[in-house]
Amino acid sequence: MSRAPLVLSLGEPAGIGPEVVAKAWTALRSEAPFFVVGDAWLLAAQGIAVSEIDHPSEAATSFGRALPVLHHPAPAPVTAGTPDVRNAGVVADWIEKSVALCLSGDASGLVTAPIAKAPLYAAGFRFPGHTEFIAELTADAPLDGTRGPVMMLTARDLRACLVTIHLPLDQVPEMVTAERVKRTARVVHEAMRRDFGIARPRLAMAALNPHAGENGALGLQEIEVLRPAAEALRAEGIAITDPLPADTMFHDEARATYDAAICLYHDQALIPVKTLDFWGGVNATLGLPIVRTSPDHGTGFEIAGKGVARPDSLIAAICLASEMAAARASR
Amino acid sequence: MSRAPLVLSLGEPAGIGPEVVAKAWTALRSEAPFFVVGDAWLLAAQGIAVSEIDHPSEAATSFGRALPVLHHPAPAPVTAGTPDVRNAGVVADWIEKSVALCLSGDASGLVTAPIAKAPLYAAGFRFPGHTEFIAELTADAPLDGTRGPVMMLTARDLRACLVTIHLPLDQVPEMVTAERVKRTARVVHEAMRRDFGIARPRLAMAALNPHAGENGALGLQEIEVLRPAAEALRAEGIAITDPLPADTMFHDEARATYDAAICLYHDQALIPVKTLDFWGGVNATLGLPIVRTSPDHGTGFEIAGKGVARPDSLIAAICLASEMAAARASR
Repeated sequence: MSRAPLVLSLGEPAGIGPEVVAKAWTALRSEAPFFVVGDAWLLAAQGIAVSEIDHPSEAATSFGRALPVLHHPAPAPVTAGTPDVRNAGVVADWIEKSVALCLSGDASGLVTAPIAKAPLYAAGFRFPGHTEFIAELTADAPLDGTRGPVMMLTARDLRACLVTIHLPLDQVPEMVTAERVKRTARVVHEAMRRDFGIARPRLAMAALNPHAGENGALGLQEIEVLRPAAEALRAEGIAITDPLPADTMFHDEARATYDAAICLYHDQALIPVKTLDFWGGVNATLGLPIVRTSPDHGTGFEIAGKGVARPDSLIAAICLASEMAAARASR
Repeated sequence: MSRAPLVLSLGEPAGIGPEVVAKAWTALRSEAPFFVVGDAWLLAAQGIAVSEIDHPSEAATSFGRALPVLHHPAPAPVTAGTPDVRNAGVVADWIEKSVALCLSGDASGLVTAPIAKAPLYAAGFRFPGHTEFIAELTADAPLDGTRGPVMMLTARDLRACLVTIHLPLDQVPEMVTAERVKRTARVVHEAMRRDFGIARPRLAMAALNPHAGENGALGLQEIEVLRPAAEALRAEGIAITDPLPADTMFHDEARATYDAAICLYHDQALIPVKTLDFWGGVNATLGLPIVRTSPDHGTGFEIAGKGVARPDSLIAAICLASEMAAARASR
């Protein structure tokens, strides 16, 4: 039996989502099928063939000639570049419906197009972001292993996973605790096995300080926090390095020595990711009961409706979700 | 009249210095001449032809067939991989002599092979490093403009200049003051004109916090320190951006928009530099009365004497010093 299709939540309707979804379908129509939960008219307005479906199982039949859509229309008119708070509810509904289809097995993984936080907050949305909402929607579903969410960014062969994410830099050192590092590493270790089919994952831990603290001369966190965490993780059977100087971890030869990097703060992970592959980076959420990826960019209101948005990241997100779903299915 | 040759100080004799110097000469012998201040016998032991000279003016004549050396022998026997404190004094002498030849105009610029700090400290050396020593040796020489030193690292077309260097990460936020940022930017602006021949340099300022602080939600330093510094610099006629999200500054298209990046801490500059070009990065010191570059690696005691050291970074350092000397000479 063939695997269930991926589901793609349409995200903010006034952003570049409909455009890049249409472009991604055009690029991928001969590949493994996916379907969209969203507004079919908005997608048809992008000039592609759209096929309304009633159930995910119909996606495979039409995918090659038309993009399958579970049609839930946006209630208010959509103007590219201008979000409308009256459409915030349906954006959340699209995500909720998509997650439910993953949990029921009707979809094999979720790819989320970008959402805009301001209209969602104005409509009463109470989660910091997409990822926390999806974590909450899947909180009661069983998971064999350590629960995330852990944010992973990819670029070429780099998988960079984050211990802290959206924090001012001066709050990072105190938030990098041994507990957080260990939890992150466990989630990543298990995800490398579950979602990437890597039997014996090799993790590389980034240091906090320059030169990995140079034996304490340039900071003590490597000695007091990070090395003990690495030792404890190795005692659990997780192959992880001692903290490494972050500047020498990301060139071609270094990346070949590990499967995933455990990074301590936003720019430590995002600088190498976006330097290596600015357009094709993918955000994957590890440690959830479902597969979930998203493009590594926002709603792009400033270019929405102009036809210039690049679908590279969304295409890469769909391909990565497909690989992760296949790895999960083969276990 | 042809320009004076570059001078190369040999650095730690028990490290990879003699080997990479010999390899660099082999690679560059048909190019613009340089000469070494150091131990001629150590270099001859690398299997290359060496020519003892009495004055830099003799370098050009012999350079194509033998590496010219102002011979100042190391007093104690040199064992690759094992530094000897008895040779620390001559290492400092080599630097001092090389700097003096630059100040007198007998050399057009200085390239320093790596030194080891431990034996120098044991011998009473009182400077934190190479750069501070050279700054002290040139402190009384005139400089038309703002005095450094400012550390710049290069990789391909990236020039990354540092506001703070060897600091624990938790000390970085308080050390990134408007005064330090402005001083660094002034030195870089003037160096781009003086040493790189860029009439109207474009500087890009990196933010401290993720997403450049996201209007204060992820940190206040952009609003309180960095943007005011940028405004003050622009009022002085220096073309510099407001603080930019550091993760989107270093990909190919972004780098094309500026001549030099002003980075706030070690890994923010070094991660992109070493990700883009691990082997060929160069360290240049801006804001000195003399041109000075060095390879972006250490003494490599663990591989010294094995013949496997790569000269890429030293070769790039020599080429960059030559370009900078040419730019200074043409003013």
